[in-house]
Amino acid sequence: MDIEKIVREKAAEAKEASRRLAVLPTAVKNDALLKMAGLLEEKAAQVLAANEEDIKAAREGGIKASFLDRLLLTPERIKGMADSLRATAALPDPIGEGDFATVRPNGLELRRVRVPMGVVAIIYEARPNVTAEAAGLCLKSGNAVLLRGGKEALKSNLAVINILREAAYGAGVPEGALGFIDFTDRSAVDAILHANGLVDVVIPRGGAGLIKKVVANSAVPVIETGAGICHTFVDSSADFDMAVSIIVNAKTSRPSVCNAMETLLIHEAKAESFLPLVTKALREKGVELRGCEKCLSIVPDMNPAAPEDWATEYDDLILSVKVVGDIEEAIDHINRYNTGHSECIVTKDLVNAHRFQAEIDAAAVYVNASTRFTDGFEFGFGAEIGISTQKLHARGPMGLRELTTEKYLIYGNGQIR
Amino acid sequence: MDIEKIVREKAAEAKEASRRLAVLPTAVKNDALLKMAGLLEEKAAQVLAANEEDIKAAREGGIKASFLDRLLLTPERIKGMADSLRATAALPDPIGEGDFATVRPNGLELRRVRVPMGVVAIIYEARPNVTAEAAGLCLKSGNAVLLRGGKEALKSNLAVINILREAAYGAGVPEGALGFIDFTDRSAVDAILHANGLVDVVIPRGGAGLIKKVVANSAVPVIETGAGICHTFVDSSADFDMAVSIIVNAKTSRPSVCNAMETLLIHEAKAESFLPLVTKALREKGVELRGCEKCLSIVPDMNPAAPEDWATEYDDLILSVKVVGDIEEAIDHINRYNTGHSECIVTKDLVNAHRFQAEIDAAAVYVNASTRFTDGFEFGFGAEIGISTQKLHARGPMGLRELTTEKYLIYGNGQIR
Repeated sequence: MDIEKIVREKAAEAKEASRRLAVLPTAVKNDALLKMAGLLEEKAAQVLAANEEDIKAAREGGIKASFLDRLLLTPERIKGMADSLRATAALPDPIGEGDFATVRPNGLELRRVRVPMGVVAIIYEARPNVTAEAAGLCLKSGNAVLLRGGKEALKSNLAVINILREAAYGAGVPEGALGFIDFTDRSAVDAILHANGLVDVVIPRGGAGLIKKVVANSAVPVIETGAGICHTFVDSSADFDMAVSIIVNAKTSRPSVCNAMETLLIHEAKAESFLPLVTKALREKGVELRGCEKCLSIVPDMNPAAPEDWATEYDDLILSVKVVGDIEEAIDHINRYNTGHSECIVTKDLVNAHRFQAEIDAAAVYVNASTRFTDGFEFGFGAEIGISTQKLHARGPMGLRELTTEKYLIYGNGQIR
Repeated sequence: MDIEKIVREKAAEAKEASRRLAVLPTAVKNDALLKMAGLLEEKAAQVLAANEEDIKAAREGGIKASFLDRLLLTPERIKGMADSLRATAALPDPIGEGDFATVRPNGLELRRVRVPMGVVAIIYEARPNVTAEAAGLCLKSGNAVLLRGGKEALKSNLAVINILREAAYGAGVPEGALGFIDFTDRSAVDAILHANGLVDVVIPRGGAGLIKKVVANSAVPVIETGAGICHTFVDSSADFDMAVSIIVNAKTSRPSVCNAMETLLIHEAKAESFLPLVTKALREKGVELRGCEKCLSIVPDMNPAAPEDWATEYDDLILSVKVVGDIEEAIDHINRYNTGHSECIVTKDLVNAHRFQAEIDAAAVYVNASTRFTDGFEFGFGAEIGISTQKLHARGPMGLRELTTEKYLIYGNGQIR
């Protein structure tokens, strides 16, 4: 079986469908999304049965609990998938929006409008809810999708995508628009990453390992998402109560996600008074602390931080802690080790707040708020396909707008140059 | 000599400078641009002397005339470079501009602002004017630049960049902001393309070969520019005079550039009457015609087009010509062979004009105007760093806006999630 050939055929089908999708009326897309939601709920039993098989196999394979939790579907989670499709239907259609129009001195009428990318490939891990969410967001933004989910969720994903296709194609969405690669072989991913001309963009969603592999190997343009080494800097003028509350929230409310905090920086003028307070609060939440030498001299029963700690995304209840001489050292440390995701300063000082926001190189820079807010829903976009940590095309939470590109439409009456 | 190490050191210097450039006031940048322009004119003799050496060596190497013309500098061309720097100074500064601001229900104040990319590498051919133009546009947009020009222009480029540096660094631009790689070895380019973390984006400027090499080999994100297989479709309702005028302009006004036309499509209902008219006009301009079978049956003394002609960017006075059955066949042909640059329909039919613009997948889609207008200056951007033919980040002519990325600035008063 020639996997590459079959993947390219599916990509070509998606490309073909994308031309018709690009001009599909909003009402047809919204109707399809609502029918996809309805049929998913109606046929929930099929999805749950398939998911049970995936879960059973994963459990027998001795896969760890946090992985199983992401793989697991329940009636509530299926309702959540359906609700997310309905929410996507309710969002404004980005296609055709324009942000620039002009008439040139020679009479040429020029406007720039949003158009779909074409074919968006999403490479993700064993999370079946991503199947419905990504399919819905790509459809709404006029893109054909090519999905490739983690192999442990294959049965669940197939159950979901078949239901979505039945509803969508029945509602007028061109066939091929909801592409799904059901090969679990690694070479299927390689084929996607080299389908230039058929796939317009690849978005990896998952852990650092997956993202790194995709970025390193793809010939198709990639939107890099996800990895987050997020810092909070407690300035000398910080309100201690506010700082403790923000830090505990940023570290412990959901330690496994990319906008969770990994490193705490403390201005040395306040280290002696603040460090005991914050370590007590964090330890009550079960956080392991790894401190610099100065930290250890103030709170001796902390683990010592190794150099690699500053460059580690724990995704766990572990926090590295460092005392810095001033805001400049804090900014230098963050710009050296951060991953371009979310950074925070807790301060009462206007000049420092402004300087931190101006000089930190990251997608989202907070003054006096938890980094956990970096999220498409929290930002009010109504949807999120991922959080971009790179600078090209999209930066920060990506909603429907970030799944589009632009096109110039020009009207003349015979102008030549 | 370890070329990779030295390139990385220069990139690191540029990265360091980029942090200070990002917060450099507009007035300082504009003052530097004006001083760069002034010093370039003042020291024009130095540049001309260096250029004379490059020209002499190139001539001795037997390099062809069109190449020599691009390499040649004259007092007028140096004045042109200085004027372009002054024009860049006069453009609005894109940094800090925002297109989105909101207050979330929890009181978080959120805004999205334009910030520089960081370090922009420009890889270009032996055109010394690009040195000044790229340096100016990157400086104005708050980016450090890492330039690598064609080896035949090395002496000219060094003369230009040294003058620009003297003026810029003297005017408060941080040292390292105007990076220039003076190794002519191919490995210097490879080192740039793999300087992830130091170089934020690579923009190749030049012929198809250069661009293809950069896209295929770069681990740093690339903005693909340039290649243009542009079509003009003459619909059955076209005004013949207008169509001939547009076609002659699009093909012959400057055949070597990317927005020049390469293929003419003609609706079969008008092929017999229109083809003799347009071939006569094109032949008067010295254009070689390569036609499909139907074309040959109408105008027999045309060369036959081979299948590869439809996929060829001639960049020369050659045009492929094809008769198509209807607008659908025209759209299919263009979407199969175009490079995402500029396409045109000549028509009086509103429905066909609209359909062509909606269904053609390209950066710029024209109704009744020459494709030669796809250009940052013609579009009114006041500058152009290249024309993007891809869909990520930028599409079509790229001005200062396209040299920036975005950042979210968020103010809170202790919000947690």
